[in-house]
Amino acid sequence: MEPREISQAVIGRLPRYLRYLGDLKDEGIERISSQELSKLMKVTASQIRQDFNNFGGFGQQGYGYNVEHLYEEISNILGLDQKHQLIIIGAGNLGQALANYMNFERRGFIIKGLFDNNPALHGKTIRGISVQPMDQMEEFMKTNNIDIAVLTIPKTSAVEIAEKLVQYGIKAILNFAHVDLNVPAGIQVENVHLSDSLMKLSYNLSCYNKEQ
Amino acid sequence: MEPREISQAVIGRLPRYLRYLGDLKDEGIERISSQELSKLMKVTASQIRQDFNNFGGFGQQGYGYNVEHLYEEISNILGLDQKHQLIIIGAGNLGQALANYMNFERRGFIIKGLFDNNPALHGKTIRGISVQPMDQMEEFMKTNNIDIAVLTIPKTSAVEIAEKLVQYGIKAILNFAHVDLNVPAGIQVENVHLSDSLMKLSYNLSCYNKEQ
Repeated sequence: MEPREISQAVIGRLPRYLRYLGDLKDEGIERISSQELSKLMKVTASQIRQDFNNFGGFGQQGYGYNVEHLYEEISNILGLDQKHQLIIIGAGNLGQALANYMNFERRGFIIKGLFDNNPALHGKTIRGISVQPMDQMEEFMKTNNIDIAVLTIPKTSAVEIAEKLVQYGIKAILNFAHVDLNVPAGIQVENVHLSDSLMKLSYNLSCYNKEQ
Repeated sequence: MEPREISQAVIGRLPRYLRYLGDLKDEGIERISSQELSKLMKVTASQIRQDFNNFGGFGQQGYGYNVEHLYEEISNILGLDQKHQLIIIGAGNLGQALANYMNFERRGFIIKGLFDNNPALHGKTIRGISVQPMDQMEEFMKTNNIDIAVLTIPKTSAVEIAEKLVQYGIKAILNFAHVDLNVPAGIQVENVHLSDSLMKLSYNLSCYNKEQ
């Protein structure tokens, strides 16, 4: 398929489709209509058809979608047919939690290295991956063909480390640091700001309370 | 201020405004124009003014915004003038990482309890908070006035636990389990699906590569 401009909103919805299709596949279901999928996922059937039309529609609507085929197609669109090599910068609690998180590997995101400034952590291993000093990052990235870095370091050092990662050839950053990174065009960044999610809950809680 | 219908997209942007205003406050900056804020945050000044107009505009544009005042206003809108009592369900790596995450407390989100099914974890303490068996959750929620639960348990048990939490009177759930929760209207849910963020990166990486 030729690359074309797909909105990030549509892309953002693809992982959820993939999750539901994976569950259907595991349950042995072979075909599903957009109406059934709509009921299951609580989005309109027209939204589903519009989303899928961005990628050519994925087959005849009259017969419903072939679950396995659709799963494979969306998986390929998301680039999950290729493996990605990751490093995690920051081997504190969150970094260690992510290193232990098996779901990443199942999707082809292979954690190859862990880096931290804290000498007390050097040599510690998590799932066989040993924590290394930061100054070995450049060499490690080159020999291990690393394309994604996960940042779980404080905001004070995140901007500087991101600049180094770019210099060393990183292509994408999953950023947990509570700061916006300043990277050149072409470098992909996804932010996960955990406090922001709590604040949204807090807003909606206080609105809900006011209406009581 | 009377509650009115504000889009979740606007609400979702408020924590980022708050973060930048907090940094400006820390730097001792007293006033900022929407143009300066626009440059700093890399969003248009018109977007900023539109967002703020949802809440009455926050003061005279000619003189710029009073940083401290704006910080307080947004903080109050987000309900951060009230404290929230949290429990974390699942004291595995991620649950422990979140229990150790000090940023939550700074924003008024107080972690009161940790719960896990695994007897090996019972009695273990993280920042003074001890891990308790799941069957003590109901009693604990009542005596500690818990309004938010953070779910860091596998998807297989998340749906069932969420139902129990609702039954015990929870008002909001921050869900890290890789499944959609089915809760009644009025219960707030925010999902943090970490694999989804990696998949978005993967998509954008593969698109970028195709264009080379």
